Amino acid sequence: MIFKKAAILGIGLIGSSLARNLKQNNDVQTLAVYDKNTENLKKAQTLNLGDICTDNLEAAVADADVVIFATPVCAFGELAQNIKPYLKNGAIITDTGSVKQYSLQEIEKHLNKNDGFVIVGGHPVAGTEKSGPENGFASLFKGRWCILTPDENSTPEAITKVTQMWEHCGMLVDTMQAAHHDKVMAAVSHLPQLIAYSIVGTVADLEGYEHKEIIKYSAGGFRDFTRIAGSDPTMWRDIFLTNKHTVLELIQRFVEDLIALERNIRWDESDKLFALFKRTQKIRKDVIEAKQDQPEHEKRLLEESKTQGNPK
Amino acid sequence: MIFKKAAILGIGLIGSSLARNLKQNNDVQTLAVYDKNTENLKKAQTLNLGDICTDNLEAAVADADVVIFATPVCAFGELAQNIKPYLKNGAIITDTGSVKQYSLQEIEKHLNKNDGFVIVGGHPVAGTEKSGPENGFASLFKGRWCILTPDENSTPEAITKVTQMWEHCGMLVDTMQAAHHDKVMAAVSHLPQLIAYSIVGTVADLEGYEHKEIIKYSAGGFRDFTRIAGSDPTMWRDIFLTNKHTVLELIQRFVEDLIALERNIRWDESDKLFALFKRTQKIRKDVIEAKQDQPEHEKRLLEESKTQGNPK
Repeated sequence: MIFKKAAILGIGLIGSSLARNLKQNNDVQTLAVYDKNTENLKKAQTLNLGDICTDNLEAAVADADVVIFATPVCAFGELAQNIKPYLKNGAIITDTGSVKQYSLQEIEKHLNKNDGFVIVGGHPVAGTEKSGPENGFASLFKGRWCILTPDENSTPEAITKVTQMWEHCGMLVDTMQAAHHDKVMAAVSHLPQLIAYSIVGTVADLEGYEHKEIIKYSAGGFRDFTRIAGSDPTMWRDIFLTNKHTVLELIQRFVEDLIALERNIRWDESDKLFALFKRTQKIRKDVIEAKQDQPEHEKRLLEESKTQGNPK
Repeated sequence: MIFKKAAILGIGLIGSSLARNLKQNNDVQTLAVYDKNTENLKKAQTLNLGDICTDNLEAAVADADVVIFATPVCAFGELAQNIKPYLKNGAIITDTGSVKQYSLQEIEKHLNKNDGFVIVGGHPVAGTEKSGPENGFASLFKGRWCILTPDENSTPEAITKVTQMWEHCGMLVDTMQAAHHDKVMAAVSHLPQLIAYSIVGTVADLEGYEHKEIIKYSAGGFRDFTRIAGSDPTMWRDIFLTNKHTVLELIQRFVEDLIALERNIRWDESDKLFALFKRTQKIRKDVIEAKQDQPEHEKRLLEESKTQGNPK
């Protein structure tokens, strides 16, 4: 038991997957789940994700030893302001936001150590393209990295508890500066996601092609991008706008590289193309060797399809 | 039995998957497999993929009722020229090339109906990021589309036989003009692939980031692109260079759209971002409804990992 009472704010894919773990791992006595979306809240109740499922912030956070922000990051500021009157002294505040500088600034605008709160920024680097509490599952975090970004508002005790919570979910926990986190994530996550959105838009807009044909032959490669571009629109909009400057810089670099590649094709520079494609193949090997390519989500889908006799 | 003797030229992922089918489906009496690469040929022998496994073109194509070109497309012209003296009169020539105008031009430069050959262009739209005969498998084609691009050199009888061959592999067969094929594939396959190569290159090149970190946190999204960019370099170099003009035009459109998206981020146009991301989510639904998202390959990997007790 790490916490007597925990409150998860926002019961989407990540929040609900964490909720499943906290109960299953016996890490909390009482788990409160808050969401302002009535539909999500109903699903959370049906799925029995919390002892308390409520759209009342006071009921959720009162007496909580830890409050976990798991909504899209643009909601953090208002939430922090609204829970402040009900928080107990010494409560640990952590989050699952994908952009750490912005998230922590928003939280610390309203809650800080002078008020007796302890803040430990966190980002479990896991997810699928699905959203909503019904799509969460306990093994989502297994074998994945969780990045904590503690700062001067964090205490060793709080860091240890938050670390334990994620480790019990099967995560490997790493620690870095919030600014560095945002740079690394812009590269490995935000830029790729933006490119996927962009290409799906481009291809879907092409005139002279039938939409039906594009979908019909999507197994040629396009479908992989549609999977990525099927992710939660609100979450991603927030990420791009709150990690704006790093993302904009990376887009510029990407465009430069793509234009160079375009030129290689135009001038039949086949050696340069081959050299790049060989290099990316090597990077693929590195990813596999680092065991970062275990598709937990797909394994789960497959398991489900077997049980239901209805592959999807 | 469709063919007394069939010859597959090039025993990579596609060639070897087709070989497995031809034997398994009893569609040929004698199957000859040609590859100029000694290593691939040895693997083909070990895997028992053909009755004849040879690097001698004459031995491969002599008396064959059908010859299937399954090498990278830039090898087609030379192959066509070299097999001409050994081909039997009336032989059906087909292929698996991803670019149809170029492939057929190269073949028809040397083999045409005046010589008594019947040509039926084909493209099974299936594949994985792996290459080589050891990575082929019979169910690769199941539920996927095969596009045939017959022209004035094709006879109804030959079209029927090639159609049957792919249908027996579990494919849905469609027919279109070679030029239209190349336009559709540029959109659903060639552009997405190029973008994946490009982004993996960009991210891997970023200075101020440790390569190790990029790999470590690749589950954030980057790994999906590395998977795509792990595909066969020779095959893809050939595709981009032989479908050059369509690919170049699509790159331009993509860059325009990406720059527009960049501007939306810079100016906090959150509604426009949200609208695009909602639209791409809808496209994802269309792909799933069209049943074009069954990851046969991943299912297979999972099955293997279970048998071997060693998930990868």
